[in-house]
Amino acid sequence: MKVRTESGIKDLRAVWFENGMVMMIDQRELPREVVTVSFNDYLEVAEAIRNMTTRGAPSIGAAAAYGMCLASLSGIDLDTASKDLKAARPTANDLFYAVDYMYSLLKNGSDPIKAADGYADMIVSKCTKIGEHGSRLIRDGMRIMTHCNAGALATVDMGTALAPMRKAWADGKRFFVYASETRPRLQGMQLTAWELGQEGIDHAIIPDGASAYYMEKGVDLIITGADRITANGDFANKIGTFDKAITAKHFGIPFYVAAPVSTFDFNTKTGRDIVIEQRSEKEVTEMCGMSIAPAGSPAFNPAFDVTPAELVTGFITENGIFYPKDIKKVMNNE
Amino acid sequence: MKVRTESGIKDLRAVWFENGMVMMIDQRELPREVVTVSFNDYLEVAEAIRNMTTRGAPSIGAAAAYGMCLASLSGIDLDTASKDLKAARPTANDLFYAVDYMYSLLKNGSDPIKAADGYADMIVSKCTKIGEHGSRLIRDGMRIMTHCNAGALATVDMGTALAPMRKAWADGKRFFVYASETRPRLQGMQLTAWELGQEGIDHAIIPDGASAYYMEKGVDLIITGADRITANGDFANKIGTFDKAITAKHFGIPFYVAAPVSTFDFNTKTGRDIVIEQRSEKEVTEMCGMSIAPAGSPAFNPAFDVTPAELVTGFITENGIFYPKDIKKVMNNE
Repeated sequence: MKVRTESGIKDLRAVWFENGMVMMIDQRELPREVVTVSFNDYLEVAEAIRNMTTRGAPSIGAAAAYGMCLASLSGIDLDTASKDLKAARPTANDLFYAVDYMYSLLKNGSDPIKAADGYADMIVSKCTKIGEHGSRLIRDGMRIMTHCNAGALATVDMGTALAPMRKAWADGKRFFVYASETRPRLQGMQLTAWELGQEGIDHAIIPDGASAYYMEKGVDLIITGADRITANGDFANKIGTFDKAITAKHFGIPFYVAAPVSTFDFNTKTGRDIVIEQRSEKEVTEMCGMSIAPAGSPAFNPAFDVTPAELVTGFITENGIFYPKDIKKVMNNE
Repeated sequence: MKVRTESGIKDLRAVWFENGMVMMIDQRELPREVVTVSFNDYLEVAEAIRNMTTRGAPSIGAAAAYGMCLASLSGIDLDTASKDLKAARPTANDLFYAVDYMYSLLKNGSDPIKAADGYADMIVSKCTKIGEHGSRLIRDGMRIMTHCNAGALATVDMGTALAPMRKAWADGKRFFVYASETRPRLQGMQLTAWELGQEGIDHAIIPDGASAYYMEKGVDLIITGADRITANGDFANKIGTFDKAITAKHFGIPFYVAAPVSTFDFNTKTGRDIVIEQRSEKEVTEMCGMSIAPAGSPAFNPAFDVTPAELVTGFITENGIFYPKDIKKVMNNE
């Protein structure tokens, strides 16, 4: 991803390996400041995953892979390192997968740096293909809307929903992106708008409730990410996605979901089987460390909603774009 | 409206006259603290309108009426007082109307206090009737959703959208209210949830983007206010109202608009003729006096959206409830 610094535009990943150290963009400092941090101890990497220096399941997986790489280079027992890294974020599936992937390669004598770079490259390669397939949907002059952050920060590089926009812009297409702010945690304002600004892509932040206002004025395409896509094409994504999908259908605007094949969960039949995480009400009622709500008024804070397949125009994957009715083909084309 | 204080529950208005002074709830201190302020000079009342000690067009009108009352009691020239009060918020139609109303009565020798109380009572009487008509829609066990603040703070007492809830609760009906927070200025979180809490009405604050999530789980009734209703039944209201109306239609949930007849503007044919105020992007990108957005990312901040009549189930007015197709009868029943 492009990152604008005082010494010019750099091409950085969210997580990478350089001069014997694991490097990360410190996402806790965004959008205020671009700070890169470096670690030469795998336990520091585990702590950076825990304290959310890096965020987003694929980026967390890559960080853990590089953590295993550091442990191996330092001669640390791989069972100990696996256990420590897996404990960093107890519910992140990509984290477990990446640690096991590296453990198996390292036990078989693979080069630690090549193995970890390979893991990160694999993620970026999928996102790049999502960008190539998705960019075919984008034409000059379009107005595109997205929600939350499905960008390079979360996926090492390129992103999922943002990959088609990066590719199209790099190809010289010119369009405008509405980034809805995504309350309560404001990932749309603080991460997506930041990424778009770094790439030089025309955009504006809008309140979540201004979606219908701008869709009526004319939005040509909506692309969001997904946290899980079930066997029938229902998908879970950040709260507010469902509202946008309903409004898009009302106006007849194409609604696409960008995600790698690994996000498809064919063991789960429909969205009704997805359990939604309910997060702390303080994310809604506090700002800048202070309460902004009436004392005694509770707040509800579901982290995700589930959008039914009937509202999805298509899924943009590394294997191509698929209609919900053809969802089974997503796997076959691998 | 009920206000809970250390010395028990009081029944207060947003603005009133007592012991020769104009009294107001200082809305700038809500929801943190309930502060009542008093003024014995009409110029202080003008300043309180200007600095938003009191807010909401009907409450501003009542404050101006009491300002004229103070001026008259102090022997101030009424032309001077009219000019000073009208200059407090240059675009508030209720303000001009209230000042002219008082000017005319005072010139004809009316008692200043009775005239101003009469103006405030007229507003409260309309809201009380809206509450009576609207409360017929509310049944025990219902889940109701509202947006922004169309409450007692804005209308001296009772409110418009909140009037049916106040009346139904007072009648012993028990229900639950979802108050969407209403970004960017958070009137849903900071004013509506506060009012509901003071009345003891069960409620929770939700992010604006959680509307579809809760509507799918089961919302029985949606009531919002309106800033302007045009001749064909389209209406302008706080940004985010249009999104909710579309989502309500998707789920088949009744969507009502509560407003006095004075909000109907039969001189404006459709919602397309309404010019939407675009407010400062800082309301979106700043919080607690600090920027929370990426430097260089613009934000759009339309204050209102326009919901078409086809998404409205009915209008709750002081003259009864009217379907959009019967909108002309709103005036005839006066």
